[in-house]
Amino acid sequence: MTDLALIAMISIFTAGLTVSFGALGPALGEGRAAASALNAIAQQPDAASNLSRTLFVSLAMIESTAIYCFVVAMILLFANPFWNALIETSAQSVGG
Amino acid sequence: MTDLALIAMISIFTAGLTVSFGALGPALGEGRAAASALNAIAQQPDAASNLSRTLFVSLAMIESTAIYCFVVAMILLFANPFWNALIETSAQSVGG
Amino acid sequence: MTDLALIAMISIFTAGLTVSFGALGPALGEGRAAASALNAIAQQPDAASNLSRTLFVSLAMIESTAIYCFVVAMILLFANPFWNALIETSAQSVGG
Amino acid sequence: MTDLALIAMISIFTAGLTVSFGALGPALGEGRAAASALNAIAQQPDAASNLSRTLFVSLAMIESTAIYCFVVAMILLFANPFWNALIETSAQSVGG
Amino acid sequence: MTDLALIAMISIFTAGLTVSFGALGPALGEGRAAASALNAIAQQPDAASNLSRTLFVSLAMIESTAIYCFVVAMILLFANPFWNALIETSAQSVGG
Amino acid sequence: MTDLALIAMISIFTAGLTVSFGALGPALGEGRAAASALNAIAQQPDAASNLSRTLFVSLAMIESTAIYCFVVAMILLFANPFWNALIETSAQSVGG
Amino acid sequence: MTDLALIAMISIFTAGLTVSFGALGPALGEGRAAASALNAIAQQPDAASNLSRTLFVSLAMIESTAIYCFVVAMILLFANPFWNALIETSAQSVGG
Amino acid sequence: MTDLALIAMISIFTAGLTVSFGALGPALGEGRAAASALNAIAQQPDAASNLSRTLFVSLAMIESTAIYCFVVAMILLFANPFWNALIETSAQSVGG
Amino acid sequence: MTDLALIAMISIFTAGLTVSFGALGPALGEGRAAASALNAIAQQPDAASNLSRTLFVSLAMIESTAIYCFVVAMILLFANPFWNALIETSAQSVGG
Amino acid sequence: MTDLALIAMISIFTAGLTVSFGALGPALGEGRAAASALNAIAQQPDAASNLSRTLFVSLAMIESTAIYCFVVAMILLFANPFWNALIETSAQSVGG
Amino acid sequence: MTDLALIAMISIFTAGLTVSFGALGPALGEGRAAASALNAIAQQPDAASNLSRTLFVSLAMIESTAIYCFVVAMILLFANPFWNALIETSAQSVGG
Amino acid sequence: MTDLALIAMISIFTAGLTVSFGALGPALGEGRAAASALNAIAQQPDAASNLSRTLFVSLAMIESTAIYCFVVAMILLFANPFWNALIETSAQSVGG
Amino acid sequence: MTDLALIAMISIFTAGLTVSFGALGPALGEGRAAASALNAIAQQPDAASNLSRTLFVSLAMIESTAIYCFVVAMILLFANPFWNALIETSAQSVGG
Amino acid sequence: MTDLALIAMISIFTAGLTVSFGALGPALGEGRAAASALNAIAQQPDAASNLSRTLFVSLAMIESTAIYCFVVAMILLFANPFWNALIETSAQSVGG
Repeated sequence: MTDLALIAMISIFTAGLTVSFGALGPALGEGRAAASALNAIAQQPDAASNLSRTLFVSLAMIESTAIYCFVVAMILLFANPFWNALIETSAQSVGG
Repeated sequence: MTDLALIAMISIFTAGLTVSFGALGPALGEGRAAASALNAIAQQPDAASNLSRTLFVSLAMIESTAIYCFVVAMILLFANPFWNALIETSAQSVGG
Repeated sequence: MTDLALIAMISIFTAGLTVSFGALGPALGEGRAAASALNAIAQQPDAASNLSRTLFVSLAMIESTAIYCFVVAMILLFANPFWNALIETSAQSVGG
Repeated sequence: MTDLALIAMISIFTAGLTVSFGALGPALGEGRAAASALNAIAQQPDAASNLSRTLFVSLAMIESTAIYCFVVAMILLFANPFWNALIETSAQSVGG
Repeated sequence: MTDLALIAMISIFTAGLTVSFGALGPALGEGRAAASALNAIAQQPDAASNLSRTLFVSLAMIESTAIYCFVVAMILLFANPFWNALIETSAQSVGG
Repeated sequence: MTDLALIAMISIFTAGLTVSFGALGPALGEGRAAASALNAIAQQPDAASNLSRTLFVSLAMIESTAIYCFVVAMILLFANPFWNALIETSAQSVGG
Repeated sequence: MTDLALIAMISIFTAGLTVSFGALGPALGEGRAAASALNAIAQQPDAASNLSRTLFVSLAMIESTAIYCFVVAMILLFANPFWNALIETSAQSVGG
Repeated sequence: MTDLALIAMISIFTAGLTVSFGALGPALGEGRAAASALNAIAQQPDAASNLSRTLFVSLAMIESTAIYCFVVAMILLFANPFWNALIETSAQSVGG
Repeated sequence: MTDLALIAMISIFTAGLTVSFGALGPALGEGRAAASALNAIAQQPDAASNLSRTLFVSLAMIESTAIYCFVVAMILLFANPFWNALIETSAQSVGG
Repeated sequence: MTDLALIAMISIFTAGLTVSFGALGPALGEGRAAASALNAIAQQPDAASNLSRTLFVSLAMIESTAIYCFVVAMILLFANPFWNALIETSAQSVGG
Repeated sequence: MTDLALIAMISIFTAGLTVSFGALGPALGEGRAAASALNAIAQQPDAASNLSRTLFVSLAMIESTAIYCFVVAMILLFANPFWNALIETSAQSVGG
Repeated sequence: MTDLALIAMISIFTAGLTVSFGALGPALGEGRAAASALNAIAQQPDAASNLSRTLFVSLAMIESTAIYCFVVAMILLFANPFWNALIETSAQSVGG
Repeated sequence: MTDLALIAMISIFTAGLTVSFGALGPALGEGRAAASALNAIAQQPDAASNLSRTLFVSLAMIESTAIYCFVVAMILLFANPFWNALIETSAQSVGG
Repeated sequence: MTDLALIAMISIFTAGLTVSFGALGPALGEGRAAASALNAIAQQPDAASNLSRTLFVSLAMIESTAIYCFVVAMILLFANPFWNALIETSAQSVGG
């Protein structure tokens, strides 16, 4: 059972690392974009609707990289292909 | 029982690492956004309501990456799929 | 008893690491937000109430990531699910 | 089965590392580009359509490096050539 | 007695690490807030009382993350739940 | 089979590392170039076509370093010369 | 005697690490606060008394985090609870 | 065959490291040069041809360091002198 | 004698580390405070006495963290409580 | 043959490291020089020939450090004195 | 004699580390103070004597942290208390 | 022959490290000097000859540190005193 | 002879590390002081003698920390107290 | 002969490390000083002789720290006191 346990451990660790490290860049980038959107609105209130739209498109684009990380972490935790493959293999070797 | 203990240990460590490292980026990003919102309000008090709304949407977006991390840490601590799988397996091997 | 001791050790270390590392980002982010709130009040004293409200909402939002870390550390120290599971298991194996 | 397990482990770890580390640069770069697009729109609202087009082309270009990373991570998880090669080999050695 | 000694060692190390690393962020954040409060008072002496109040609330908020760390270090040194649990266990095993 | 497995592992890890680390520089560089292109267009709308052309040439040039990394990662995964050489060798030693 | 020696070693190392690392943040933070107090006094000499009072309160607040570290180091060196517990235990085991 | 495998492994790892690390500097440097070319064109549209020529010469010069890295990586993968030497040696020792 | 030697070694290393690392922050902080004091005197020569007084109080406050480190290093070298305790213990075990 | 293989491995790794790490500084330095040349031409178009000459001399000087690295990497790969010496020695020991 | 040699080695290493690492902060801090003193004199030549006095007091204060490090290094090399204690002990064990 | 091989390996690694790490500082320093020379010429074209002379003297001075590194690397590769000494020694031991 | 060799090795390594690491801070600090002296002379040529005197005193003060490092390195290489003590000891043990 | 080889290896590595790491600070410091000398000459061409003299004195002072490193590296390679001492010792033990 050691192989299964090792894959479980590395999946747990990688899932946590992926989602936490992957939060660093997007959070900083979104903070920067939002900060400059707020300055821009204060400077040109008439263009607020235009600025908001540009901001939300940009935030969505930046957020996408964080979502890639979250997706990979979820795959590792709940749909791990290697875990399933080994589970099947060990089931067969027992069943056989 | 060693496998269970190892998974428990790596889950504990990863949960703490995830939530603490994942707090770095969002906190800095939110600080930046809030800082520039405050400057913007001071510069253009008439647009305060518009600025507040944009700030809160941005904060929510940035906070989401911290919440991903918190969710993963909670899953690791209280709904760990690998832990449950191994518990079942060891229960079967005892029951069998 | 080694398994219990190892989980105790890793929980202690992770609790400390989580709460100390998790204090870095929020403290810097709050410092930045507070610094720019003070500048904003000095620049536009008439909007002080509006600025204070925005500041406190932002501080609460940023503080929340530090509180996630504190909560996880407290869970690890006082309501550690893996510790409890292993304690029960060892109690059963003794009782059995 | 140790070889398969080792490849599974390294693939899991690399997939997570690739997608999380690869999110750092694009997120920061997109944040910078978006920030300066917002400033530019505030400064020259008449050129908004021109600026938006330039921004979206740039964001797509920057996002491409994040997508390279996501693609590599997906290949490692779901279409890993080395995993398949070893699976076939072990199937043959069993079948043989 | 090795288990007890190991837990003692890791608690000592973690307590020191927690309180020293946890001092980094708050000290820098408070320094920034105080610096900008002093500039703000010099710029707008009439708002000094308002600025002082905002400063002290902010300092208290930032200090709170340092206090979390100090509390955890104190818990680890003087009310360590794992230490107590193991002491009781070893007392029972001797008493039994 | 250990040699093959080791080469597979190091190829997997290197492919991920190459493409993720190689995304850092180009993404930041492109972000900078795009940011300053947007500022330039806002400042001199009449030169927009000239600026766009210069921007796209520069982006292509910067992107080329990311593409080198992607190419190397693909070679490592799907056309690895050392893997092929060892496969042939082991085929011969079996065939012989 | 090895356990006692190990605890002594880890206490010595942690005490030094705590007090030296814990000096980094407060010293930088106090330097920043003092620097901006001096600029503020030069800019508005009439508010010197007000500025001095704010500076000293801030310095005391920042210094507190350094004092936490010093206190923990002193506890580790001169009132180490784990050291005392193990000394008593070994005295009992000898006495018994 | 272990020697060959080790050289293969170190060549694979070095090729990836070289091309990815070597992309960092040129990408940042080219981004900076391009950014300032765009600003320069916006500031002095009449000198655009002169500026473009200077930019392309500079980009080529900077790109050359990235190309050195790519060349070395290709040599390591497809024309590795040490690999060839050892292949010949082992062929002789077999042939002999 | 190994225990004594190990404690001696760790004390030597920690003393050096403490005093050298503990010099980093205060030196930078004092440099910053002094730099801004000199600028302030140049800007407002009439407030020189007031500025000098504030500078010296600040320098003393910052220096205190360096002195904490020096004190701990001296304690470790010349009044190390663990060293004395072990010396007594070994004297007793020889005397007994 | 282990000695030869080890030297081959360390030469491969060092060649890649040298050329990739050695590309970092020159690329950044050249980017800075080129950036400021472009600004200078935009600011003073009449001195363009003089500025270009100074730029190209500077680029050549900076490029020289990258060329040192490339030369050393080529020597390590294709004219490695230690490899040749050991090859001769082993040839003699075989011939003897 | 191994214990003595180990203490000698750790003392040598610590002495070098202490004095070299301890030179980093003061040198940077003094450079900053001196730089701003020179600017201040250029800006207000009439206050040169006052500025020089403040500069020298500040330099002495900053230098003190470098001197702490030098003193500790000298103590470790020429008046190492642990070395002397072990020399005496070994002399006694030989004499006895 | 292991000693010779080890010295060869460490010489190869050190030569590459020396020349690549030693290229970092000079390249950045020369880039800064050249950048500011170009700005200076653009600002004061009449002093171009004087500025060029100062620039070339400075570049030569900075380049000297890179040349020290290149010289040491060449000595290590082609005139390594320790390699020669050991070669002679082994020749004597064979000859003797 | 192993003890002597180990002390020789650690002394060699520490001497090099001390003098090279100890050159970092002073070189940067002196560069900053000199840079600002040159600006100051350009801004106020009449105070050149006063500025030069202040610069040279500052450079001497900063250089002193580099000289501490050089002195310690020389002591380690040519007047190493531990080396001498062990040489004497080994001479006595041979003589005795 | 292992001791001699080890000392040779550590001397080679330290020599390279010393001269390459020791080039970092001086190159950056000289680059900064030269950059600001060039700006100063452009700003005040009449003080060029005075500025050049100050620059060359400063460059010499900064270069001195790089020369310390080069001297130590040369001593380690060509006049290594420990190497000589061990050579003599081994000669005596053979001669004796």
